[in-house]
Amino acid sequence: MPRSHGRRAALVHPDAGAIDVLDVLHALADPTRMTIVRTLRADPERACGTFPVDVAPSTLTHHFRVLREAGVIRQREDGNRRWTTLRLEELDARFPRLLDTIVSAYDRQADSANT
Amino acid sequence: MPRSHGRRAALVHPDAGAIDVLDVLHALADPTRMTIVRTLRADPERACGTFPVDVAPSTLTHHFRVLREAGVIRQREDGNRRWTTLRLEELDARFPRLLDTIVSAYDRQADSANT
Repeated sequence: MPRSHGRRAALVHPDAGAIDVLDVLHALADPTRMTIVRTLRADPERACGTFPVDVAPSTLTHHFRVLREAGVIRQREDGNRRWTTLRLEELDARFPRLLDTIVSAYDRQADSANT
Repeated sequence: MPRSHGRRAALVHPDAGAIDVLDVLHALADPTRMTIVRTLRADPERACGTFPVDVAPSTLTHHFRVLREAGVIRQREDGNRRWTTLRLEELDARFPRLLDTIVSAYDRQADSANT
């Protein structure tokens, strides 16, 4: 029987070899989740409340879960804080240049919208 | 007022400059739609009934609409047939290497699943 982890459910992360590209595409097809990913590319590990997004906490929790279950981010608990990192090396090993190419496309679109 | 086109609604295609990368990612995050795109990369223009997918016609129509409205494919009517092409040059001009990188990732995943 599964051991109890107290109030919180254990965080689920797929193994690197089980990351599905369709799940990654779905996870990235959202502006809030794209902002989370771009923030983590600039700053490798962040606490959950420190992302520059303007959504309700429950919505943000949902977005983190989608990214985590797709294999895009890794999260760990440390006391009352949850820390988030990008799984960039694992993603790059499985799908070379995929994340960089997608984020570059998004940056390019944002730049063209601002000019 | 819009001119009537008979029974069928006019096919809507976004301008190349209005293609949104998040819509493209969403459109590609599905195995049937990925199969359509990969088929069109090998064969530039195909009639709608000729794709190697095993879904109901109404479902296939939905998938074509998602791809078309995201700017991934272009469709034209010719009598009773509808022909589909990939908007690869326009996509590449707007988001360099995006489609190739995504399809390569999908191929790589399929290859690793088969070995």
